[in-house]
Amino acid sequence: MADNSAPSSPRPHAPLGLSRYIPAIAWGLHYNPKDFVGDMMAGIIVAIMLIPQGMAYAMLAGLPPQVGLYASISPLILYAILGTSRSLSVGPVAMVSLLVATSLGQVAAANSADYMAAALALALMIGLIQVLMGVVRLGFIVNFLSHAVIVGFTNAAALVIGLSQVKHLMGVKIPSSESFFETAHHLVQAAPDYNPISLALGLGSVGVLLFFNRSLPKRLGQLGLSKAWITPLSRSGPLLVVVTTIALVGLLNLDSRFGVVIVGEIPQGLPPLSLPPIEVTLWQQLLPTALAISFVGFMESIAVAKSLASKRRQRLDANQELIGLGAANLGAAFTGGYPVTGGFSRSVVNFSAGANTGLASIITASLIALVVLFFTPWFYHLPQTALAAVILVAVINLLDFKSFSQLWRVCQADAISLAITFVAVLAIGIEAGILVGFVTSVGFYLGRTSRPHIAEVGRVGDTEHFRNIKRHPVQTCTGVLAIRIDESLYFANTKYLEDYLIQAVADHPAATALVLICSAINHVDGSALETLETLIEDLREAGVTVYLSEVKGPVMDQLEKAGFIDHLGGPGQVFLSTHQAMTTLECG
Amino acid sequence: MADNSAPSSPRPHAPLGLSRYIPAIAWGLHYNPKDFVGDMMAGIIVAIMLIPQGMAYAMLAGLPPQVGLYASISPLILYAILGTSRSLSVGPVAMVSLLVATSLGQVAAANSADYMAAALALALMIGLIQVLMGVVRLGFIVNFLSHAVIVGFTNAAALVIGLSQVKHLMGVKIPSSESFFETAHHLVQAAPDYNPISLALGLGSVGVLLFFNRSLPKRLGQLGLSKAWITPLSRSGPLLVVVTTIALVGLLNLDSRFGVVIVGEIPQGLPPLSLPPIEVTLWQQLLPTALAISFVGFMESIAVAKSLASKRRQRLDANQELIGLGAANLGAAFTGGYPVTGGFSRSVVNFSAGANTGLASIITASLIALVVLFFTPWFYHLPQTALAAVILVAVINLLDFKSFSQLWRVCQADAISLAITFVAVLAIGIEAGILVGFVTSVGFYLGRTSRPHIAEVGRVGDTEHFRNIKRHPVQTCTGVLAIRIDESLYFANTKYLEDYLIQAVADHPAATALVLICSAINHVDGSALETLETLIEDLREAGVTVYLSEVKGPVMDQLEKAGFIDHLGGPGQVFLSTHQAMTTLECG
Repeated sequence: MADNSAPSSPRPHAPLGLSRYIPAIAWGLHYNPKDFVGDMMAGIIVAIMLIPQGMAYAMLAGLPPQVGLYASISPLILYAILGTSRSLSVGPVAMVSLLVATSLGQVAAANSADYMAAALALALMIGLIQVLMGVVRLGFIVNFLSHAVIVGFTNAAALVIGLSQVKHLMGVKIPSSESFFETAHHLVQAAPDYNPISLALGLGSVGVLLFFNRSLPKRLGQLGLSKAWITPLSRSGPLLVVVTTIALVGLLNLDSRFGVVIVGEIPQGLPPLSLPPIEVTLWQQLLPTALAISFVGFMESIAVAKSLASKRRQRLDANQELIGLGAANLGAAFTGGYPVTGGFSRSVVNFSAGANTGLASIITASLIALVVLFFTPWFYHLPQTALAAVILVAVINLLDFKSFSQLWRVCQADAISLAITFVAVLAIGIEAGILVGFVTSVGFYLGRTSRPHIAEVGRVGDTEHFRNIKRHPVQTCTGVLAIRIDESLYFANTKYLEDYLIQAVADHPAATALVLICSAINHVDGSALETLETLIEDLREAGVTVYLSEVKGPVMDQLEKAGFIDHLGGPGQVFLSTHQAMTTLECG
Repeated sequence: MADNSAPSSPRPHAPLGLSRYIPAIAWGLHYNPKDFVGDMMAGIIVAIMLIPQGMAYAMLAGLPPQVGLYASISPLILYAILGTSRSLSVGPVAMVSLLVATSLGQVAAANSADYMAAALALALMIGLIQVLMGVVRLGFIVNFLSHAVIVGFTNAAALVIGLSQVKHLMGVKIPSSESFFETAHHLVQAAPDYNPISLALGLGSVGVLLFFNRSLPKRLGQLGLSKAWITPLSRSGPLLVVVTTIALVGLLNLDSRFGVVIVGEIPQGLPPLSLPPIEVTLWQQLLPTALAISFVGFMESIAVAKSLASKRRQRLDANQELIGLGAANLGAAFTGGYPVTGGFSRSVVNFSAGANTGLASIITASLIALVVLFFTPWFYHLPQTALAAVILVAVINLLDFKSFSQLWRVCQADAISLAITFVAVLAIGIEAGILVGFVTSVGFYLGRTSRPHIAEVGRVGDTEHFRNIKRHPVQTCTGVLAIRIDESLYFANTKYLEDYLIQAVADHPAATALVLICSAINHVDGSALETLETLIEDLREAGVTVYLSEVKGPVMDQLEKAGFIDHLGGPGQVFLSTHQAMTTLECG
């Protein structure tokens, strides 16, 4: 596989000229015909997945189904040209669609022209924000969400999204809400009005989709089919559900006879050129969501893109990725779409179906363009309950409860962050929940580094080695106290260090010298220096002189620049080794 | 000095029974008569400082002058009994008074009964919060404010407080505001109405106070006076200013003839017992300020108490300190006072004047009780401009612009945090400004640790040592890539590590083995493990096997618990030393 992609790879370090800004040039100019079969295959399979998904996610976002299809044409092409991942599948995704629904619900009535205009404005804002973030190289900020927070938030969002589809499955009307508990409450109230035909169609669809997802690949494998057949067959579940339910509704008139809600008329023709409204008030209202989607969308996208790239030894540029995704959203804004990002499961399918270059996405986009040009009337009788089933099964795959117990074993703080994020997202919504999770995980990290490991050490036998007096049989001497600090010093842990040292000196009334062993200190900040300077002065008044040993080169440079060494009493107070310090201080 | 305090010190590790909760028992039961002279002297000098300061700070808080005196009686005694510092001087301070003024200004009209009642409620709330924080051992949270943030906020608060007094100096009336720029704007507008006599009295007072603060100690020293005389004399500047201005105003009738604002009648007698109002609405309004004062007051107090304690090898218990300060505030709430904390400059005076135990503060409180019992009529003609001068000179000592350039040399991120906090406090107020500073400093810390030092290493000659290939002439081999990571791994830096490793592998197409040298990793969190596991799997697909070397004991335990070693391919993938790894991988 590595060989396969190598010919079309640019040299990782020297993307020449334009190809650095337009990655498609790199694979386009030297396109290897061997890559074509894979690209074609992947393009077709992803199109088969994306047609029902696009319509379903548009519905989740409160938009007409064709908007999901429009968002699956130009954004894919723009990303293929400007993005750095060879296998990311851009387009409508569940999480972003939910965020779109909750924010647009606050500025416009559902199904109104204002609602559609706001969706375009949101895509434009997200495009601008992502391109700007890429240009000023802010791609790194996504690193600050811990795995625990991402898992907690993904699980909760999957539940929120899944629950939001139950109303379509049941065939009832309830107000849409970002709150899990509010939606659940409304559902329980509306339950008696459920439509049995809708529910049967929906649950049947869920069953078929689950079978295609979980059992079919294994069964086909047992039948001896090759992988080239298994992947397309097992991914065509949504297509089968769509075709079957359209046929059932159309032939049996389930819509007019039993009130099954259908998609209805979808305009035919290529996506219209659209001009997003540029209104200060609207943009102000949409700004928080635009920032959240820019961030969450990028996070979801980069996670899968990175994993796929490393499997083929390809490189990703996080900032160019932002530009690619931003361009995709700008494309959506001007061609009647709505916010998009790289989808997790579709990208994995694209990759494993053989996508070698962005051409796969261009093929997908072309097929979807054909659909909107000629085949939209075929979807007239498609029941919403079938689309809800497609979303439900997609988000079930996002649920991951195993991570909690795994994290609990590795690091309880992480597991607690996960749980807090999960509950916060369910209770107060996605954006606020992620913020709570971020603050929690940073808090745990600061808490851990604020209590560094500090040990009083003594000499091991007659050697030059010094070890923790609590763990090893060592010799100490009454006049000199030797203490090793196992962490870089910064504002949150210097007071802890100060307390430790003050107590240690109080516990050793006979000590006149204190040797701080600095072998594990990689950095010292201004607070730490200030605290140490005050402490050294105070201890001097109390009759204790402070010495340093084993100071690393860069830290020593820092201490000298800050005048700390003079403050300490000159270079004579700093020893190269602890052994040297102890011998000089007549504690040998 | 260490000897002097030793007899009355409890054993640091074994405060027996009650004395752990009532530290006064420790020094009270074994009071050493030798300590009495110092305690008496310090008690008298602090009382001389505190009488004008107490009235001035009460005025700053928008309260009648006697409230400042009441807040200097029972709180001092309660802290002396329950606090752990032997030399902290509790009572009204400038910063807390300013916070009181801005929050009470929003809930009640100045000089109204409601205003006074709200001050009592605030003291009660702060007392409860601090006692609770002490009981649940939250004393550590104060460690999370970096030195840079504290300096930035202290400087800005000093400017805000200083500017708030200029109106009294000028003898004009303007609305009080927490915003520096708003106050400055009002002052400029009111400037033409200034009272020349007030201004002359005020500036004269400032001159006298500055002379006493800055030049007098040196001059007296040159005259050959002993330190026992210099300290009380140079600290009696405020007393001299008060006596002189009272005499001038009273004898020349400056109040009635020239409109100089005077303190007026101060009720005579001991502090009244007061019952703070317990109203839900009022408490809700006051809660944010109560939390901010609890925190800021504790921070100011613990900083000076810690510094003084370490000079005499005494120990402080941050949580017991919270209980002591909380009790002081409860005392203020029930005896007609207002919120208090340990003051910086007063505590230093108390310490250097010889305070050995809490008895010094009890003596100060007794002297102030005598003043409110018998001498308040003497203060009738005290001009407000003189009190403003006392505050102005006190906050000038808080200004510290040297720290910025010092920090800039040591650590530019710290200097930037300082500047941002300073500007934020001036622009948006103390509480919000501190929050901005905190977020900035944490951001810089996370930013630094999110880009750890990582180096590709090679063998030095024929030795067993491996060093950075960029700094040393070393030998590498094409099939094996050895990389050293110089930081603990957590969520904010694992993606950076991942990018580095993916790029390194892409740069070495011939590499089939990757050795991660873990000697500097003290901890690994769940995100890091997850990222590493995915990466190891992806690299395996790309034909690269990952090995670890020099894993520390505790980290190894963690990796085993998480099942990471099995994931890696078993214990055979982990080498004790890099030398062993390289030799085994036939790269010797």
